[in-house]
Amino acid sequence: MIKILITGAAGFTGVKACAYFLKEGYEVYGMVHKNTPKEEKIKFLSCDLMNHEEVEATLKSIKPHYVLHLAGQNHSGVSWDKPIPTFMANANGTLNLLEGVRLHSPQAKIIVVGSVIDFNPCYLTKPNHPYGLSKYVQTLLSSCWSTMFDLNIMIARPSNLIGPGPSNGICSLLAKKIALNERTSTSIEFHFHNLLDQRDFLDVRDAIKAYHTIFKYGKKNNSYTIASGNSKSLVDVVRVFKDLTPTNLMITTDFFQRVEPIRIDIKAIKLLGWEPQYTFNQSLRDSLNYHRGNFF
Amino acid sequence: MIKILITGAAGFTGVKACAYFLKEGYEVYGMVHKNTPKEEKIKFLSCDLMNHEEVEATLKSIKPHYVLHLAGQNHSGVSWDKPIPTFMANANGTLNLLEGVRLHSPQAKIIVVGSVIDFNPCYLTKPNHPYGLSKYVQTLLSSCWSTMFDLNIMIARPSNLIGPGPSNGICSLLAKKIALNERTSTSIEFHFHNLLDQRDFLDVRDAIKAYHTIFKYGKKNNSYTIASGNSKSLVDVVRVFKDLTPTNLMITTDFFQRVEPIRIDIKAIKLLGWEPQYTFNQSLRDSLNYHRGNFF
Repeated sequence: MIKILITGAAGFTGVKACAYFLKEGYEVYGMVHKNTPKEEKIKFLSCDLMNHEEVEATLKSIKPHYVLHLAGQNHSGVSWDKPIPTFMANANGTLNLLEGVRLHSPQAKIIVVGSVIDFNPCYLTKPNHPYGLSKYVQTLLSSCWSTMFDLNIMIARPSNLIGPGPSNGICSLLAKKIALNERTSTSIEFHFHNLLDQRDFLDVRDAIKAYHTIFKYGKKNNSYTIASGNSKSLVDVVRVFKDLTPTNLMITTDFFQRVEPIRIDIKAIKLLGWEPQYTFNQSLRDSLNYHRGNFF
Repeated sequence: MIKILITGAAGFTGVKACAYFLKEGYEVYGMVHKNTPKEEKIKFLSCDLMNHEEVEATLKSIKPHYVLHLAGQNHSGVSWDKPIPTFMANANGTLNLLEGVRLHSPQAKIIVVGSVIDFNPCYLTKPNHPYGLSKYVQTLLSSCWSTMFDLNIMIARPSNLIGPGPSNGICSLLAKKIALNERTSTSIEFHFHNLLDQRDFLDVRDAIKAYHTIFKYGKKNNSYTIASGNSKSLVDVVRVFKDLTPTNLMITTDFFQRVEPIRIDIKAIKLLGWEPQYTFNQSLRDSLNYHRGNFF
């Protein structure tokens, strides 16, 4: 039975990744920072990724075949107030994990989940925020550890993940407000910085299938961008939600500044046989139903 | 009186930098990890750069005008055995220092001392060792903190520093063996990997003058390579030492592989008015005399 260790197992992606790999027949170990959930089939364990001795002991006891590294500080806004914890969570946490694998499970396949928004120092000398820098260092460390220590590390760079579950993403926050409003019958207000901003949204369940595809067919030290390949404006988000709820949405924005659609290249992951399955509308519907309490 | 805080004050460069800036009329604060030396004029203080609260308290109490960041793990060989401590010393130590400055002394001029051997990810995807990666992340963090938080950070990238004092550099190690041999009248043996390897050696006293020049005339977020501009082979090192000692040197080498001379571009620092003063021979002579015990 293939053992998979998933870090950040209590997070938006983590919870669903644990359930997915369990259903696919894996022996699933879910690493959380503290308060391990009670679950019979998934083996939850608490481990502080900042503590390299704890991480090493965990890897030594499990010796996983696959490691899916989802844990991290994923909020760019927070990174301005907490640059040190952001850097430590994303850079040092990853380093400690890779060292644990190197020392105790060097044959394991590892997917480090970065972000499409990390910056490329060859084109851009100034990242937008400490979060972007921390994600770049995370993928740099991963790539270097793969080549320097001959480890089977692959990097996944997902776009904005949406779908059912609690997330701090803009779609989930809006769905949550709508669901609240439906219950209390108040008129909700939601603020956007620039309503014409463009994003690539991908369903979290499609992302997890992409990680599975990378474990099976991905090449060592390759980087895979995972996205829908479609650009949506925040107006598109609002429009879909308006069709899904009878409630009145009051949208405010600082300005309407036209932004070019973004085109994310997903050739590499498509070549491995992956295609997104969920439509944008389906993802937003499931997100809203989750927050209404009727999606499990 | 201008206050300068020097980290790594007990190191090869640090000891001489403290003495130099004191002589130049600065109020010198020497940060060491532990065991503060007894000295009347230099204000030594112990502080663990890995502990960001300690670092912040130190910056808050001193509020320096200049910060010369010399502390770090500077041995590439050690980095293979201790990749986590190397990364933490060079990346996290620098991050904690920059955050301390940002929060408590944001007007300060900071020189972060990197290395000419950090790698450039635009040309080379594989650094040679975890040390090279840690130095690259150190300078990347410095450059990002300068632009993202508008701090007055400059980067100095010295080549191989030589001269009087205890150092783990190849010239100092050889000088130490020669001095020992002169006292014990045994024939020493010294091993090189490739005797034809080329290096750029610079006197540590010239490097300190370069740091002073950068504090006075350097531009924010600029990077200055500090080197002699001359390439020397290890054969050149041996030749100079042979002329300085009556003792018999037995040099062994794994092989003689011809290496192209290296040319390091030092235009930027020369434009600020700096020129190296010490000749290669003088530096090696002073190094040997230091290890003989008659250089103070």
